[in-house]
This record gives sequence, C-alpha cells and structure tokens, in this order.
Amino acid sequence: MIHVRYNLILFAAAAAVFVAPRPAKSQSPGKSADLETRYRETARKITEAALQSQGAYDKLVELCDDIGHRLSGSPELEKAVDWAQKKMREDGQENVRAEPVMVSKWVRGRESLEMIAPRKASLSMLGLGMSVGTSADGISASVLVVADEAALEAAGEKAAGKIILFNNPMPTYDPETGSGYGTAVRFRHKGAQLAAQHGAVACLVRSVTARSLHSSHTGAMSYGDAVKKVPAAAISVEDAEMISRLTARGIDVRVKLKMEAREEGQARSANVVGELRGREKPDEVVVIGGHLDSWDVGQGAHDDGTGCVMAMEAINVLRKLNLTPRRTIRVVLWTNEENGLAGGKEYARFHADELANHVAAIESDAGGFEPRSFSVECSDKKVQEIAARQLAEIVKLLRPTCTMDISQGHSGADVSPMRDAGVVLMGLSVEGSKYFDYHHSHADTIDKVDPTELSKCTAAMAVMSYVLADMPERLGHEPE
Amino acid sequence: MIHVRYNLILFAAAAAVFVAPRPAKSQSPGKSADLETRYRETARKITEAALQSQGAYDKLVELCDDIGHRLSGSPELEKAVDWAQKKMREDGQENVRAEPVMVSKWVRGRESLEMIAPRKASLSMLGLGMSVGTSADGISASVLVVADEAALEAAGEKAAGKIILFNNPMPTYDPETGSGYGTAVRFRHKGAQLAAQHGAVACLVRSVTARSLHSSHTGAMSYGDAVKKVPAAAISVEDAEMISRLTARGIDVRVKLKMEAREEGQARSANVVGELRGREKPDEVVVIGGHLDSWDVGQGAHDDGTGCVMAMEAINVLRKLNLTPRRTIRVVLWTNEENGLAGGKEYARFHADELANHVAAIESDAGGFEPRSFSVECSDKKVQEIAARQLAEIVKLLRPTCTMDISQGHSGADVSPMRDAGVVLMGLSVEGSKYFDYHHSHADTIDKVDPTELSKCTAAMAVMSYVLADMPERLGHEPE
Repeated sequence: MIHVRYNLILFAAAAAVFVAPRPAKSQSPGKSADLETRYRETARKITEAALQSQGAYDKLVELCDDIGHRLSGSPELEKAVDWAQKKMREDGQENVRAEPVMVSKWVRGRESLEMIAPRKASLSMLGLGMSVGTSADGISASVLVVADEAALEAAGEKAAGKIILFNNPMPTYDPETGSGYGTAVRFRHKGAQLAAQHGAVACLVRSVTARSLHSSHTGAMSYGDAVKKVPAAAISVEDAEMISRLTARGIDVRVKLKMEAREEGQARSANVVGELRGREKPDEVVVIGGHLDSWDVGQGAHDDGTGCVMAMEAINVLRKLNLTPRRTIRVVLWTNEENGLAGGKEYARFHADELANHVAAIESDAGGFEPRSFSVECSDKKVQEIAARQLAEIVKLLRPTCTMDISQGHSGADVSPMRDAGVVLMGLSVEGSKYFDYHHSHADTIDKVDPTELSKCTAAMAVMSYVLADMPERLGHEPE
Repeated sequence: MIHVRYNLILFAAAAAVFVAPRPAKSQSPGKSADLETRYRETARKITEAALQSQGAYDKLVELCDDIGHRLSGSPELEKAVDWAQKKMREDGQENVRAEPVMVSKWVRGRESLEMIAPRKASLSMLGLGMSVGTSADGISASVLVVADEAALEAAGEKAAGKIILFNNPMPTYDPETGSGYGTAVRFRHKGAQLAAQHGAVACLVRSVTARSLHSSHTGAMSYGDAVKKVPAAAISVEDAEMISRLTARGIDVRVKLKMEAREEGQARSANVVGELRGREKPDEVVVIGGHLDSWDVGQGAHDDGTGCVMAMEAINVLRKLNLTPRRTIRVVLWTNEENGLAGGKEYARFHADELANHVAAIESDAGGFEPRSFSVECSDKKVQEIAARQLAEIVKLLRPTCTMDISQGHSGADVSPMRDAGVVLMGLSVEGSKYFDYHHSHADTIDKVDPTELSKCTAAMAVMSYVLADMPERLGHEPE
C-alpha cells in the first residue's frame, strides 16, 4: 500500500517538475538536481550533530581497548558480536540481531624467524593468514631474493630447496595515483604458490607498506589449487632490505622459520545487524557498514573498527534527531572479511530475496581518515551512471565540512557479493596517505584515529544514507 | 723544530696581513677572514671527492649488516673494534690502534610485559639500559599513570605497590624548537628513582619518540644513589596511550613485567684510533669521531654508525687526495657512549697530557642526515667566541653542497670530558626531524640512511677537520 501511494505521489511530483520546474526552495519530492536544495537544512543538522557527537570514537575505544583485535574464530570476535548488538540496543535501534555465519578458524600459534648465517639475528615477522605452519624444528634454508615473478622465473633451478623472499617494495603514497597496494600485495597473496611451483620450501614477503619502523604486516594468502603448501610469512621492510643487501654482496643468508600456524576448521560467528526502520517503505533498504573482524595484531582500529562505529553512530545520530527516512537504513557489521569473506557472502545469500529492494550498500573499509569521496558501482551500467550523477549532488550537502566527490568503480569486499543481484554498491574513500602504514600490523591502534576525522566520516555516512533512504526516486533511477 | 719555524712563518704572514691586507686570491697564511678564499679550491676538491665516494656508506653496510648492534660488553662491539682498525689500516691510516677501556656490561636477557587485566594482551616493551631485572615470576601490579613529577607527587600514597607509568609525550619535531627530546627523556633517566621514592614496585615510561608504529625505544636509566632499585622499561606510545585511556575510564589495569636484565660487572673494550698525521705540527690534533657502541636493538645505524664511518671516510678522502694538513687529524671511535661514557672519559684521561695540543674535538652523534650546522663550546668563552667567528667562515667553504651555520653550545657526550682541559668541542648537527623516530629502537637500521646525505656529512667533516688542522692560526685564537 505504502509503495503504491508513494509511487503516485512521486509520479505527480516528477510530472510537476517536468512541466514547471520548481525553484530551489521547493519542499516537494523532486528530481536529483533538487536533492541539494531539498536536503540542505537536514544535512546541516545531521552534520552538526555528527561533529558534536563523540559517539563513534567512544564506541571505538570500547571495541579497541576492551576487546582488542578480533580474528575470525577467536573469542574476541564473538565478544565484539555481543558488544555491537548491546551498543545498538542501547542506542534504541530496531531489529538488532546476530545473523549466524560459519567462518574459517586459522590460528597463528607461536612463530619466529631467525637469521642463522652469516650471523645470528632475530628478524621481525608475522605469518600470513591461512598459511600452513612448519614442523616443530622449523625450516632452515638459504634465502633466494627475487623482486617479482620474472626474477623468480629467471632464477630457474636455483629456487629449489630455498626460501624465496619476494622483496618488492610498495611505493610511497602519491596523492595522484594512491598507495600502490593493489600491485604490491600480489606477492602476499600468491607468493607461496609461486615459491612452491619452483621447488622452494617456504616463502617470505616484504611487508606491504611504504613506511616501516621494523614493522611486519600480515594479511591473507592463498594456496589456490596448489598441491604443495609451503609456509608463508611477512617480514619487515628493514629485514627484507638487509637480506637483499647481504645476498647482493654474494653472502649466503640462511634463516630458520618456525610457525605453528594451522587451520582449525570452521567456527560460529555472525554478522551483526541493526536498523533505523523506514517510515514509508521499510522493506527498501540502504545498507551501511564495515567488517567487525580484524587480524590478530594491533586493535583493528582503522581496519575496520572505524567502518563499524561510523555506521553504528550514523543511525544513532539520525535517531536522536528524530529523522526517520522513507526507507530503512540497515547497519551491517560483517564478519570474516579478512580471511574468507564468509560474512559478506552469507549476507547476500541469506538476504537474496530482499536484494532487489536493496537501494544501495555502502561499505567503509579504508580507515577513518578525512572523507574524500564515495565510489559507486553497479552491474547495470546505466544505473551506475545515473547513481553517480545523483550522488554527485548529494555529496554537495556535506560541504563545507567535507569536500567529497564521486568515483565510479570498486566499492568494498563485503558488499561485493551483492553485485550480481544488481545492488548499487558504494564505498567510502578517505585520505589514504597513512592507512597502509598501520594496515594489518601491531600499529593499527586507536591512537592513530583522529576523533574529528572519524566524526566527519560519521557525518558523511549519515547524510548519504539518510538522503538515499529518504529521497523519493530510487538511487540509479530517474524520477518517474 | 717544526713548531718554532712554523710560528716564525705565521708571525711574518700575520704581520703582512695587518700591514697590507691581501686581496682574496692570497695563498699566504692569513687571518680567519681569509680562510674562505684560501681554502676554496681545496674545499671544492674535498667536497667533490666525498660526494663521489660511496666509502662511508659501504663501511656502514659492513658495520650494520655484518656485525649489527654493538652493546658494551657484547662480542659484537669487540668485532666492531677489530673491524674499524682493519678498515682504517686498509685505508692506509697511521697509528691505527685500539686504546683499552673497561666498560660496564649490562645484559638484557629475556623480557616481557603482559597486560593481565582488564584483558590479556602482550605489550611492546624494551627494558631500560642498566635496569635491574625482576624475579623469575615477574612483578604483577596495577598501573598508576602519571604525566610528570607533579602528578606523581599529587598521587601521594596511591603510588605504593603500583607500577608507575610515566606517560609524558615527546612533542612532534618542530624546525624552530627541535625535538623536545631533552625534556621528555628525563622520565627515562630518573623515572625509576621517582617511582621507588613513592613506594612503587616498577617503572614504565612512554617511549621517547614522537612517531610510533608500536615501537619501543630503550636508553640509559640511572638509579643515582637510590637504595631501592626497581626495574624500569620503556613501552610503546600505543600501549602507554591504551593504559592511560583505560585507567582514565576508571578501569584497573594490571600488568606483569618480567625482566632478566642484570649487570655483569666490567668488560674489556676499546676506543679505536687512526690518524692522518700532520706535516708540520703532528702533535697538534684535531679529533673527529663518533661512538662505536650502540644499544642492543636495531643496527645502531644513525646512532652512531654514521658518526663513525663519516669520520673514517673523511680522512680517507683527504689521504686519497694527498692532502696532508699541518696538524694531525685523529679519528676516535669511542666505546660505551650509551651506558657509561667510559670511552669518552678514558680518552680524556689517557690523553690528558696531550689535551693542551687538541685544537678541536668534533663529534657526530645526531645521525647521518643532511648537515645543518656545527656547534661549538669551550670552557674559555673568549676562545669560544673567536672560534665561532672562524668556524662561520669555514662553513662557507661547504656551499653550495651544504648550507651550514654555527651555533654555540652543546657539542657531544664523548668529547665532553675534554671540556675542563679547555679543548674547543664541536658537534655536527643535522636535519633532525626523523632521528628520534629510530633512536634506540629496532628501527635504527641502515635503510634509514640516505647515502647522499651521509656523503654530505663526510664532506662537512672532511672540510672542517682539514681546515682546522691546516689553518695557520689555532682555532679560537686570533692570528698572532
């Protein structure tokens, strides 16, 4: 009923606009070009409230300090699942629940890497997520340093019996071209496969970061269909460079790698959901969220505690302002983004029959820095184009607090399983110069989060989700 | 003989200058104002050779990669003593020798800091140098966080039985005011004394750094005359902030500190000396150097490998150019700067009867970054003033490669025992924005050293030491 009546109103309004365009002060539903005018005052209120609220930061403090890091299968992640529900219930959110997801459980165990020749030295390392371990005695072998796949290929039989070190530097952050993470990370993903194919006994990768203080950065690796699985670990930039300097001088570098890493099957986990139910079309949904799991080091603050708390706080701000949009805004805190994506996949599977009513799904998983843009992608390119135009209007509402633009392309891992259902996927992009300094390392802690920058992210998510949930026409569709 | 003849020449030349000032092209010995003209061509050659040489960096690679860190009493330091002599002999230096010094031997042993309440977490720590250890079971206690001495005083009896955490941040580097290290480091030095005076059972200090990636920075502490010695350790900025946030929320934070740290009496070590003997007044000496020892983490690259290799390479460059100054340039690589200063003290004691002939003693112990200035100090303030004027002329010789100035004040720890003998003490100051990011931590590794910047330091030391050793008048004295 609501749906039909709404469409009639929308049709009338759109017709009115086309027949006689309304001036800027129009309060009636209008086409996208009117969004800025229509929502200016509301956006101002939301932004002001978000900036004044310490809510996101306070939540992040509890998540980071009281729980800490949260790897899939760990008791900490399940504490975080309970905590997030409790917080959203305290905030008065609706339909707060944990939607069960089975996740892979990988356990790091004790681990170490020691240089045993030309001299003894303890090296900085972190085993890669999903790697197998070594025997209790560890693996002792000479290191063969290669820059990339071609260098490994060129080494030919020299790789046999060695530990391969991929010493491929991630470039320094460039405001024009970004971080270079996407390119440099491939050795972390597939280095062990490549090493094993060449007869190597283990794989080390230079940590995927451009700035290091003897820091190791873990992350997911994959064996693909490999029959032979060799252990894989990240080492610090400093140690990768030292081994490279030594071998370049013709010195045989031998190391001993010990890892107790192992998979322990599946564990129960959950996506956490909470809603600000829509007033007219509650079955149409705008999803906002981040992932609740993290690696087992640091506090998972920027990755992705900030993504979780800004979504939680976004609907808290709206609710406190008594702003109930036409459609539902649903916070989803996915589990297992880091090593399996089971949360994102299960959300799309479990809600498959609802996805046609998913107006948009916005993920924040790039840290809680100064907001810079929203990305948008859709399997229907026409919808994507229209959405991009509409979004470009909406982000104007965030000025002057946030000067944001719209980019078309990759949105986020957790929302990606909804792509094939035609959902408009979006991602919050932020100032990215420091994210990978902390990413997947002991240094991803809340002291790296600036409360004001985080509040701006909350404002951006709140305004964006509110307008998408409230605007008469559906995102990606022209007014009827 | 040489001495007398030289003075006659000098007198004649100086008289000539005063009677009829020579134009800029004069090649005769002149007053300080002529130094720039006199040495311009030589300085250009030295600078060019230093910049083309990879010698300092190559030496640093060997010191850092083949030997690594070099704590007093360790086999590594004694390897470095042998290595430095070998390198200077290979370079053809004269009177290369190790001058014996007894140094304190402090051993870190195994150590750990664990948060045991409100949750378990392994914290980043490094015991402070010269600290006592704990019992094998460790010390478990609640943490009392204080910002400074006044806050500890105000806490009164609350400190009894606690582990005191001094969470006093070092400010971000400021080009105008510098690092703020001097102020922030006092808690590392005397925190344990203060803690014990208030009945605490151990002392933790926030690492003295303005930039952290979960890094702990060690360094010397002192018990002074304290009867009660409590263990002291540095923790990372991140962990100091976390404990402070938790306690500020009224949460009892309990930690368990385990340290095997102990003093093991005295060990044999040595200052390493090598010379470029002077052609006319070989008994007058310009000392240049750095300290060969380091803390037992990282590679002691900037602290103070660079200071050692730039001095070694400075006289190597001069010798290769067949530039033999009037006086002797003596490279001194002091031992035990970090925890005792036994090397600096023993040099002054052993060479006491020579110090009157020490024209200057220049230390580099601020890292191998872009050279910025030389500091100068002398117990005779008139000498200091004249020297500062002369030095201001000499640094002009380094342009345009290095734009340096002269500051009056602190020179360096290892040369300081020569102060009372009236020696003109000097220090090489460098661009200081990053030094304390690495200082006394695992991250002080050679990858942080820029070869070009290091070469510029070598050039600055070579030009400065050559001119001081060669100029007719003695530094700090007007031409006769």
